[in-house]
Amino acid sequence: MGNLASQILRIPISRTWPLVDGGKFPAKAFENEVIEFGAVAFREGHDQIAVDLLLTNPNSITTRISLKEGSPGLDQWVAKVQLNQVGTWSYQVSAWDDRYHTWLHNTEVKLQAGVDEELMMLEGISLLEQLAEVSPAATKKKFIAISKVLADEALSATERLEKALAQDLTALAEANPIRFLENLSDPAQVYCERKLAGSGAWYEFFPRSEGAKKNKDGSWVSGTFKTAQKSLARVKEMGFDVLYMPPIHPIGHAHRKGPNNTLVAGANDPGSPWAIGNEAGGHDTIHPDLGTEKDFKDFINAAAKLDIEIAMDLALQAAPDHPWVKTNPEFFTTRADGSIAYAENPPKKYQDIYPINFDNDPEGIYQEVLRVVTKWISLGVKIFRVDNPHTKPVSFWQRLIAEINSKNPEVIFLAEAFTRPAMMHALGKAGFQQSYCYFAWRNSKTELVEYLNELANDSADFFRPSLWVNTPDILTQYLQFGGKPAFKIRATIAATAGSTWGMYAGFELYESVARAGAEENIDSEKYEYKSRDFQAAEKSGQSLAPYVALLNQIRRENPALGQLRNLTTHWSDDQEILVFSKTLAAEHNGGKENTILVVVNTDPHSVRETMVHLNLAALGVTGEFKALDLISGDKFEWGEHNFVRLDSFTQPAHILRVEK
Amino acid sequence: MGNLASQILRIPISRTWPLVDGGKFPAKAFENEVIEFGAVAFREGHDQIAVDLLLTNPNSITTRISLKEGSPGLDQWVAKVQLNQVGTWSYQVSAWDDRYHTWLHNTEVKLQAGVDEELMMLEGISLLEQLAEVSPAATKKKFIAISKVLADEALSATERLEKALAQDLTALAEANPIRFLENLSDPAQVYCERKLAGSGAWYEFFPRSEGAKKNKDGSWVSGTFKTAQKSLARVKEMGFDVLYMPPIHPIGHAHRKGPNNTLVAGANDPGSPWAIGNEAGGHDTIHPDLGTEKDFKDFINAAAKLDIEIAMDLALQAAPDHPWVKTNPEFFTTRADGSIAYAENPPKKYQDIYPINFDNDPEGIYQEVLRVVTKWISLGVKIFRVDNPHTKPVSFWQRLIAEINSKNPEVIFLAEAFTRPAMMHALGKAGFQQSYCYFAWRNSKTELVEYLNELANDSADFFRPSLWVNTPDILTQYLQFGGKPAFKIRATIAATAGSTWGMYAGFELYESVARAGAEENIDSEKYEYKSRDFQAAEKSGQSLAPYVALLNQIRRENPALGQLRNLTTHWSDDQEILVFSKTLAAEHNGGKENTILVVVNTDPHSVRETMVHLNLAALGVTGEFKALDLISGDKFEWGEHNFVRLDSFTQPAHILRVEK
Repeated sequence: MGNLASQILRIPISRTWPLVDGGKFPAKAFENEVIEFGAVAFREGHDQIAVDLLLTNPNSITTRISLKEGSPGLDQWVAKVQLNQVGTWSYQVSAWDDRYHTWLHNTEVKLQAGVDEELMMLEGISLLEQLAEVSPAATKKKFIAISKVLADEALSATERLEKALAQDLTALAEANPIRFLENLSDPAQVYCERKLAGSGAWYEFFPRSEGAKKNKDGSWVSGTFKTAQKSLARVKEMGFDVLYMPPIHPIGHAHRKGPNNTLVAGANDPGSPWAIGNEAGGHDTIHPDLGTEKDFKDFINAAAKLDIEIAMDLALQAAPDHPWVKTNPEFFTTRADGSIAYAENPPKKYQDIYPINFDNDPEGIYQEVLRVVTKWISLGVKIFRVDNPHTKPVSFWQRLIAEINSKNPEVIFLAEAFTRPAMMHALGKAGFQQSYCYFAWRNSKTELVEYLNELANDSADFFRPSLWVNTPDILTQYLQFGGKPAFKIRATIAATAGSTWGMYAGFELYESVARAGAEENIDSEKYEYKSRDFQAAEKSGQSLAPYVALLNQIRRENPALGQLRNLTTHWSDDQEILVFSKTLAAEHNGGKENTILVVVNTDPHSVRETMVHLNLAALGVTGEFKALDLISGDKFEWGEHNFVRLDSFTQPAHILRVEK
Repeated sequence: MGNLASQILRIPISRTWPLVDGGKFPAKAFENEVIEFGAVAFREGHDQIAVDLLLTNPNSITTRISLKEGSPGLDQWVAKVQLNQVGTWSYQVSAWDDRYHTWLHNTEVKLQAGVDEELMMLEGISLLEQLAEVSPAATKKKFIAISKVLADEALSATERLEKALAQDLTALAEANPIRFLENLSDPAQVYCERKLAGSGAWYEFFPRSEGAKKNKDGSWVSGTFKTAQKSLARVKEMGFDVLYMPPIHPIGHAHRKGPNNTLVAGANDPGSPWAIGNEAGGHDTIHPDLGTEKDFKDFINAAAKLDIEIAMDLALQAAPDHPWVKTNPEFFTTRADGSIAYAENPPKKYQDIYPINFDNDPEGIYQEVLRVVTKWISLGVKIFRVDNPHTKPVSFWQRLIAEINSKNPEVIFLAEAFTRPAMMHALGKAGFQQSYCYFAWRNSKTELVEYLNELANDSADFFRPSLWVNTPDILTQYLQFGGKPAFKIRATIAATAGSTWGMYAGFELYESVARAGAEENIDSEKYEYKSRDFQAAEKSGQSLAPYVALLNQIRRENPALGQLRNLTTHWSDDQEILVFSKTLAAEHNGGKENTILVVVNTDPHSVRETMVHLNLAALGVTGEFKALDLISGDKFEWGEHNFVRLDSFTQPAHILRVEK
């Protein structure tokens, strides 16, 4: 057996974290994220150990951080560290025989029992002499001076120990230790990416709808990058960091889908942007209706001036009239009858889409996709929202993302995969910086408590969730039937529980009518132009935009909300009142602790009164505290047990800042 | 990131099991143990995959075993395999693109919908031709014949498919697959040890008590290996496989403990066997009172004739008069005042024991312990019960066990460590074949359900628990205050839930009086001779021995009880009625399924009536079934929901065999 097993260390370190699949993948972090580093380390017998984190930053500078014992009985040693630099960090854990603290503990216990007093003094002197021997001159002098205190027979042993401790013996010994029997864990990596990889507020619109106009004959004039540029102010007013747009490429004609996903499109129907490619070009081309490459660059630049980044769609599939079908038929599957295979989920057929076959010519398709992505990066795109990555090989994504990030580490890929957990998690490990998740379908308090804890803990090392309240594909029953309160509740939870959240245009107008039998909007923008009067809605008080702007302002002003792993759920006596908090310690926030406590009624049809019971330690308080409601401006005196009344029809949530 | 991450496979395999610490240690198994092998494997899109286990036995012969999909939605693929050979096994998981089943599924769905009928026939023909091409002549002929069926335009597509399937197309394709895109997981190991490493019934006695006689003056004549040999019949009658004896070495005189752990021993007090060594010798020597090495060998041989193995104690510590103290003072710690350190847990002192310092002369002490262990192995000892391994370095044990097992793989080490989980688990990973566990302190139904599931599942790959009902150090409050029913209940649970269980002499006599304030027997055998009249107790009906014999007989006749990982707990409406089952499939038991269902009242003071609700699938039944009570001989007709009445004062448990 021995020859197959790893050698166990003298001071065993049986586990370290963060660690993904035993170290097969680096753990993920983003700039200024606070990560718990830890280890299970222990030793035989009663003597004490010390455990340190040796953390090496991307510049190869290593810092030693002392770990503190965590949960009693589990031999866990932990520290929370804020990673302040993008790049690859690495760490090892050091465990060693802490003879100073062993001696101190034994001496205190024995002096109290009146046992071995002189012997413990002798052993202390011997230890201090050892410490002195390896110390620089000034320190050596201090150790020797204190060892003379321990030898001073004019004093009792207890007096000698007290005197030595009063001369800061412990601090001196801790700062100048001999690390007896020191051993190190295997090294492991943490890959730290830029802030938007893990923390941000996203908005989605279709550029063709922004400024689109309907002619009298029922035909439409498409919006363009130029007209859409005017809508950037609206996105900025709501406080979003990223604007994501569905594909901006030419749209296929063959089998084009009509309104409401019907099989036949009329002459004026613009088609689904995801049916990419026609005679005008494919994935490397801009739809002529939207403008030119210059218009697109102008649009990106205009957004940048407002601190908004543009996220582009990467949907690796083709319309039947995509140029690849002629130039590279080997990118697709040829059926036994010589036809090119369209998309299917038998017996369903999607004849407007040709899926790519990644096994026919893996190198060819890889190089072509690399070329396309590189082109858009050269035009200024730094974020790609990848459509259905789970229908393409995970190994393809791993190679592509690694190669792109090796030259452009700032580029972020968001995975739009709604599928089983093994695939969703594998995409995160393959390198996707961010992932859509099941938040939209977690609406009850019980579901949310379980899911938010999973996202903040179990999967946070490899899966960064983006909490979208809706998308062109997702209008949940909760939103369909929950009325306006449902929209407010969902935005509140997404913006505060999620370090990244997202919203698709129309949400602020409470668009809630679904196509029959579907969980998506009727007259979906996927197949039609949409002209929405956001201003009129806001003027008449029929818009959620001001509330959304407030949520994003609260996020900006409270950096605890931008963290992924700092969530704690608390208890309430009501089955629909959700309570959670997020906190950022003073040392990780420029000296000022930031703690936000959210209490929200998840039932959109009710006024609910209940008691809320808080985990005070998670809030950094010990008893009563002052809380400021960042929505209403109300001030509360709260403690461990608190009464709340939440009216979904007016203010369904408190977003409380703990004031100290 | 790419350069740091493992490459993800074309058909990802994100996890395989059994796997200990990501493969750092081989998983444990014992001969004829049934182990679940599995993997999380999945692919992009809708096409089907097949997943196989490639299992290599200790003779380097590899078998391919098809894995079946486990829990829906989790992409888990599993098979239960019985390891029938001692040695190191290894495995890899293979995942591949299963084009035959993808085609079959799509064809069935499409024919039902009347879509693409001829195209699917063409694709089937093309696939069968590919399969034929790589097949041996006879198989090729069959594939070609069936492909002609699919081409037979005289029949409808549906008739052609039916005809092809009727000609066993699926079996043919499964037996002769092309494994498109096949890829393999990293290899991992399973170390399979002999049966007693994981499965057996143990008894403990002090040989000096067996045949000991008290003289009129109050002094004693020690029992010897010769007199103890007579007690082997008693051990055999109760059906035990292993007899463990406390240390058999000379006992120190200095600071010898008297009765009830008092500090001063009388002239006739024999001392604790764990205070090892005096002028007569140390760990390599037999206590002169017990006999000679020849007597010991005779004892081992006499036991072997009864199919009983002898387990010896390995307690690495010394009495102050142990020969090592003179010959090898470097094995111990010298204090600052020049004295040798005795054992302490400050301020408590154990002056009769010198602990070994494993860091002073690591190589010297290692070689000496190796010499001692090797000596006893040469005398026929194959099992060592290691006293307090958690007070010695884990790395020491890892080296020792590996070296011993490399020459003597049959040798078993049992860890007597009652401490925190990190250390207990590390000792298992270091190579200890077996471990004492917290069973003695898990007495309520809730505690037992949680703990038995942990032992059978979470830790079974590296920690093999031995369920002891008592030891010279453990007489729990449950036994102290539960009366005779408590003894019956605990023996029943240990013998049926534990693949290994153990019992220390006196348990069968219901010895339940504790030393005040301690969880151990008063007048402990650790410090005194004990003369017990087992026969008289049995004659007068005051002995549990016949019941213990029945339990061990039930174990021998029902191999499901000898398995570690096959436990399922079931529901009862009563908070003290524990229900669990263990099952061994027919294929793993010579063609005959063996399923045992245990229902036990854990409250020793009551008669309880309740309903028991069974997980029928875990019992291998679908509805009503016959059950034979192996204790009472009663026969029952049971189903999913059953009434039970359990009287702790008469028969606190049913041990039911499911009869089919």
